[in-house]
Amino acid sequence: MFSLAELAVRFGCEVHGDPETRVNAVGTLQTAGEGCITFLANPAYKKHLETTKASAVILASQNIDASPVACLVTNDPYATYAAVATELHPPAALRPGVHPRAVVDPSVKVPASCEIGAGAVLGENVELGERVCVGPNTVIGDDSVLGNDTRLMANVTLYHNVRIGERCLLHSGVVVGADGFGIAQTASGWRKVPQVGGVTIGNDVEIGAASTVDRGAIDDTCIGNGVKLDNLTQVGHNVVVGEHTVMAAQSGIAGSTTVGARCVIGGRAAISGHLTVCDDVYLLGRASVSRSISTPGAYSSVLPVEEAGKWRKLAARFKRLDEMAKKIRDLERNSE
Amino acid sequence: MFSLAELAVRFGCEVHGDPETRVNAVGTLQTAGEGCITFLANPAYKKHLETTKASAVILASQNIDASPVACLVTNDPYATYAAVATELHPPAALRPGVHPRAVVDPSVKVPASCEIGAGAVLGENVELGERVCVGPNTVIGDDSVLGNDTRLMANVTLYHNVRIGERCLLHSGVVVGADGFGIAQTASGWRKVPQVGGVTIGNDVEIGAASTVDRGAIDDTCIGNGVKLDNLTQVGHNVVVGEHTVMAAQSGIAGSTTVGARCVIGGRAAISGHLTVCDDVYLLGRASVSRSISTPGAYSSVLPVEEAGKWRKLAARFKRLDEMAKKIRDLERNSE
Amino acid sequence: MFSLAELAVRFGCEVHGDPETRVNAVGTLQTAGEGCITFLANPAYKKHLETTKASAVILASQNIDASPVACLVTNDPYATYAAVATELHPPAALRPGVHPRAVVDPSVKVPASCEIGAGAVLGENVELGERVCVGPNTVIGDDSVLGNDTRLMANVTLYHNVRIGERCLLHSGVVVGADGFGIAQTASGWRKVPQVGGVTIGNDVEIGAASTVDRGAIDDTCIGNGVKLDNLTQVGHNVVVGEHTVMAAQSGIAGSTTVGARCVIGGRAAISGHLTVCDDVYLLGRASVSRSISTPGAYSSVLPVEEAGKWRKLAARFKRLDEMAKKIRDLERNSE
Repeated sequence: MFSLAELAVRFGCEVHGDPETRVNAVGTLQTAGEGCITFLANPAYKKHLETTKASAVILASQNIDASPVACLVTNDPYATYAAVATELHPPAALRPGVHPRAVVDPSVKVPASCEIGAGAVLGENVELGERVCVGPNTVIGDDSVLGNDTRLMANVTLYHNVRIGERCLLHSGVVVGADGFGIAQTASGWRKVPQVGGVTIGNDVEIGAASTVDRGAIDDTCIGNGVKLDNLTQVGHNVVVGEHTVMAAQSGIAGSTTVGARCVIGGRAAISGHLTVCDDVYLLGRASVSRSISTPGAYSSVLPVEEAGKWRKLAARFKRLDEMAKKIRDLERNSE
Repeated sequence: MFSLAELAVRFGCEVHGDPETRVNAVGTLQTAGEGCITFLANPAYKKHLETTKASAVILASQNIDASPVACLVTNDPYATYAAVATELHPPAALRPGVHPRAVVDPSVKVPASCEIGAGAVLGENVELGERVCVGPNTVIGDDSVLGNDTRLMANVTLYHNVRIGERCLLHSGVVVGADGFGIAQTASGWRKVPQVGGVTIGNDVEIGAASTVDRGAIDDTCIGNGVKLDNLTQVGHNVVVGEHTVMAAQSGIAGSTTVGARCVIGGRAAISGHLTVCDDVYLLGRASVSRSISTPGAYSSVLPVEEAGKWRKLAARFKRLDEMAKKIRDLERNSE
Repeated sequence: MFSLAELAVRFGCEVHGDPETRVNAVGTLQTAGEGCITFLANPAYKKHLETTKASAVILASQNIDASPVACLVTNDPYATYAAVATELHPPAALRPGVHPRAVVDPSVKVPASCEIGAGAVLGENVELGERVCVGPNTVIGDDSVLGNDTRLMANVTLYHNVRIGERCLLHSGVVVGADGFGIAQTASGWRKVPQVGGVTIGNDVEIGAASTVDRGAIDDTCIGNGVKLDNLTQVGHNVVVGEHTVMAAQSGIAGSTTVGARCVIGGRAAISGHLTVCDDVYLLGRASVSRSISTPGAYSSVLPVEEAGKWRKLAARFKRLDEMAKKIRDLERNSE
């Protein structure tokens, strides 16, 4: 339970309304009730502000007058909400100890502050920092390293030689360090190219459920500090992802591509292999990158849906673009 | 072993040919043999009807004459086939009991009718209905609830506070309740937004292998009764999926979007976040939705493949569409 | 440790420079050091050749002069590199035996040459060839069969009746044999169609992390010898994938489609259901196939990204293609 006054001091906001208003949980503008604090960041939701039943709202100063309840006023309501919500709903506390049904190789030293779940399997020479959490049925390959406060949820798989920094969070189904897609064509079919590199992941990285990050073919695949990957994303072998870059669900980066810092890769966007994408590139959802990008900015390549009948006509026209261009040229010649 | 007469009575069909024809398994038109029943629903396969070696065929009345064998005649051969096949090939019977290598928190009451597989891990206060099946190495987080007759196959992961109705089937690799992709930009990088909602899934829902359904940021992510998700689909946080909507493989719905009832979302189709899609929308495969849809109907946005050389020309023309439009305008002016 | 002379004999190359040069590891042109052998295959990397610190380089004869160090000269540097790298970095040796924490049904005979990891669960009548490796927490359903030298990494799931040939490698998170997406529409919603077929996988197949291969509806889903699937790929029920076909990450084949031999399916490419794609088809990344292909060759359907503002204009022009075509027709009439 916190008062708005306490939260305002802690997170550098101003209070509008009663500073003794007390909150103990978060809610949405539409569904929050007594004791809840909510926020307004996306203008599309402003219509719900005047009817909110929350006890308090985090918002920007221009929206104060529309609020029926007490406010925490800040320049960045969403970031402030993130901080307040973390205060009210901290991550579940660790339950330190090694579950008797975990299987930990004798070579591994498990600090007393770590939690190792039932069915977890830790290979030879795995190194664990303080307060590491390894979820139930998660498997960690030989010689992998997890920094302080890193958490692997249930059913995660790390192969051997995967190095992960501090305060990372890997969700269930994630696979880090599987072989990259290295195959060489021969007369008798495809020959596997051994994938002898590892994976290096920085600090404060989050990887969404069922995402895959392949090990390097020779050198490591590298993910920088502060990177956030959503679910079902794919990072190919030898890829380098710069610091604070984020990838939304089902996006992917093919092998040997380097992506800069602070990029935002929209959902389902795809970057081909052996390319370089500079810092501060924003790919809209489903964008398809097949050449290197050297200029920061927003990029797109997707045609939005049309009613299917109309779309069929447009697709047919598209197929005749070449003819159309020739007709225009003929017309131009005739009109000269 | 059933006679056609029995099946006809049970499923409301007519028999054409010998009603005492007996069948004990299903087969395809091409490969079925003695004792097999097959079906004809897709006209593309009608060419295989006259040479079928099946003992009987389920088909619509207009195809009776083309059948060399006995028939079950029905308006909807595929739905009737589904019913007949379920009769001939019922799901494997449960093997009730808790495997000695399962790890069940002492707070959990496991009904005697349930099957809990080897290596399964059930957290605190998990609630199980009757005849629930939890596959080997599946992990269920604290306070989650499974209704009667729900089955989780092997290596499924449910986080905490996931509520699933009755008669659901979740395939291997599915992850329900991982954190949604909630991150707020700050001067020092992305800050995680706690994901404090849960997931609510209705009755008769099937979720395909390696699909991911995120927990809500504040309120629950909700999947309605009768929804069917194929493999590798992504449902973001706070998404609402209406009853009887289906999503084919590798499709996805981004966070906070509401999709209506009875929609059909084709393979690889994608819907952006914070949108509303009304009931009865049919998205063709790979359609890309970036605005709300308020009119039922079919929608498309994909250009089909062309031979690569031809495609390169079309793509180049596309890039010059603006010029082309200007040339037309000039021509129009000149011709006035 | 091998000399270039030994490698040249073994792999049919010529040596340029000192044949007694000794190497014990692989490296990249940029990062290899003393004792490392590297290769030059992609011309984009030739710029790094002259400054390499490797002890030797595998390359084609036209690049000999640019090499500052000893060379193995071959027509196909990448395939030769694959062979040399396998020699220098052989796969980890098996640790034969059944881990005491594995759960093997009493009906299963485990050859002494096999390795069964901690937490692995093998169902009834599973058949294992020699030197099979089953990783930790991997689950194998009843009646499945694994040929000699096949390896399943950690956290793989095979359902029942999955038959896998020899020398296959399935990565973590892979699910083989889950139910295909067979549902029939009825007045009361979608009805599940039992999936009674199995999966048959040939020899020398590799399946990337978190990929899914569904069991057949009636007959088996079939994957031919030498097929290689990258991560997060989807193979629907009843699909047939021809020998030596490869599928890059996040690609997918919908149900009942037959793909020929030696096809290359680029990253994120998608093939609709009930189609036939002939041998030797190359789909560029993200290509979308919605009709059968009967002519070998390369196919594409993706528009590359543009700066977002420019793209918006092009997309708007695209939407008016029909109007544009009409204007051209009018102009043509006027100019006649």
